[in-house]
Amino acid sequence: LGVSSPPAVRAALEKGVIDEAKPLEEALAEADLVYLAQTIERIKETLKAADRFLKPGALVTDAGSTKAEIAAAGAECIRRGQFLGGHPMAGKETRGVEQAEADLFAGRTYVLTPLGPQDLESPAAVELVDWIRRIGARPVFLDPIEHDRIVSWTSHLPQLASTALAGVVGKALERSEAVRIAGPGLHDMTRLALSSYEVWRDILATNRQHVLLALETYISELERMRSELEQSDVEQEFAKGAKFAALLRRKLWGDLA
Amino acid sequence: LGVSSPPAVRAALEKGVIDEAKPLEEALAEADLVYLAQTIERIKETLKAADRFLKPGALVTDAGSTKAEIAAAGAECIRRGQFLGGHPMAGKETRGVEQAEADLFAGRTYVLTPLGPQDLESPAAVELVDWIRRIGARPVFLDPIEHDRIVSWTSHLPQLASTALAGVVGKALERSEAVRIAGPGLHDMTRLALSSYEVWRDILATNRQHVLLALETYISELERMRSELEQSDVEQEFAKGAKFAALLRRKLWGDLA
Repeated sequence: LGVSSPPAVRAALEKGVIDEAKPLEEALAEADLVYLAQTIERIKETLKAADRFLKPGALVTDAGSTKAEIAAAGAECIRRGQFLGGHPMAGKETRGVEQAEADLFAGRTYVLTPLGPQDLESPAAVELVDWIRRIGARPVFLDPIEHDRIVSWTSHLPQLASTALAGVVGKALERSEAVRIAGPGLHDMTRLALSSYEVWRDILATNRQHVLLALETYISELERMRSELEQSDVEQEFAKGAKFAALLRRKLWGDLA
Repeated sequence: LGVSSPPAVRAALEKGVIDEAKPLEEALAEADLVYLAQTIERIKETLKAADRFLKPGALVTDAGSTKAEIAAAGAECIRRGQFLGGHPMAGKETRGVEQAEADLFAGRTYVLTPLGPQDLESPAAVELVDWIRRIGARPVFLDPIEHDRIVSWTSHLPQLASTALAGVVGKALERSEAVRIAGPGLHDMTRLALSSYEVWRDILATNRQHVLLALETYISELERMRSELEQSDVEQEFAKGAKFAALLRRKLWGDLA
């Protein structure tokens, strides 16, 4: 059952991604699992509105990129069923059902943020974890605030670093001839900069303190690099960066690296 | 004719990449085109040593990542033949003949840095440009100093941004459980951080002023982003970054993007 705008459900029906399109209230009354794939503020609004229509015992989950505020809203609003927040570590810089990919989750981490072990014990939660494994993802369980701290480093800081880099390089190279002198490194480093602020507005607003700390730490490291570069060399920084980059690939992405 | 260490020429012979291995002096006496694929300081040393062995009229070129110092050394040292510096905008974070790829240059920009139009008029220079096209690359002609200014933005700043990012994320996430919460964005953003400092030492040392300016500009942009984030939002920065990232893809990499 798909709930979205008329053009979106039409595209989803054509692609065979959903069997039926329904208004939210009707879909909530029928569904055993409710999956909210909206922006963070819309997820919070839907949680507020959903409980009175929910099938008793249904599980409500989401794919919002920050979890502390959503987990709090879920715990407060969902009474007839259960809320269990989630964050699949997969995605694209493009959006919409046209971009759907069957193996998007293969080999990726899928975070669930229970407020306590009991949140994972219900039959619906056990089934959700089973489905996550069936789409090829690896479930990881984290406290919502710890999740938000970690993603400020693994996702939000890389996004801001890419956006700022694309901005300054674009300004420096206003002549188009200069833009041609770019290799695959700049391509990789500016991919995230394509992301829509429509999604990022809420992410940054709901994780501001963690994001500011990560950004400050990054700026300090770049300052240190600048001063090392002026005085001697940045061999240590390269060793440190290469060590983590290699660790990341060993630990996680044997298949992607 | 390959000139390198015994294990490297052995691997190159086995792979069919070269027909014969020779000492530098003998290879120089026979070659019509001398291609120096060394680190920048080694290229400068080879240029100093090469001229007295060079076949008269031979063309010497290189693939060093900065061009001003190399172009000056070439102009000074190469008398029996011609020097014409180059920089193919293709590469990997790994090295060695084992990493050779026949289509590494396909669709990529290949910069040549003549000191004046006459450098492109000799038969040997015309033939080099023809070969560059035959391996699928697009030749672009730039003044060596302008080349170095441009690559400080398109290549050297992205490298330092990636290295610093990998360093701070690695330090923040010392627990391995946290490292699992990473998606493809961090993967892209830390690929350059794998690069060997053996290569980068010379690049940074021979382009210090341009690199410092790019790094300072990047730090200022991140500072501005931090202050916007504290006070309001970073919508403008996202628009600016996305605009350049999209332009880059339109102008250059229809085939890669």
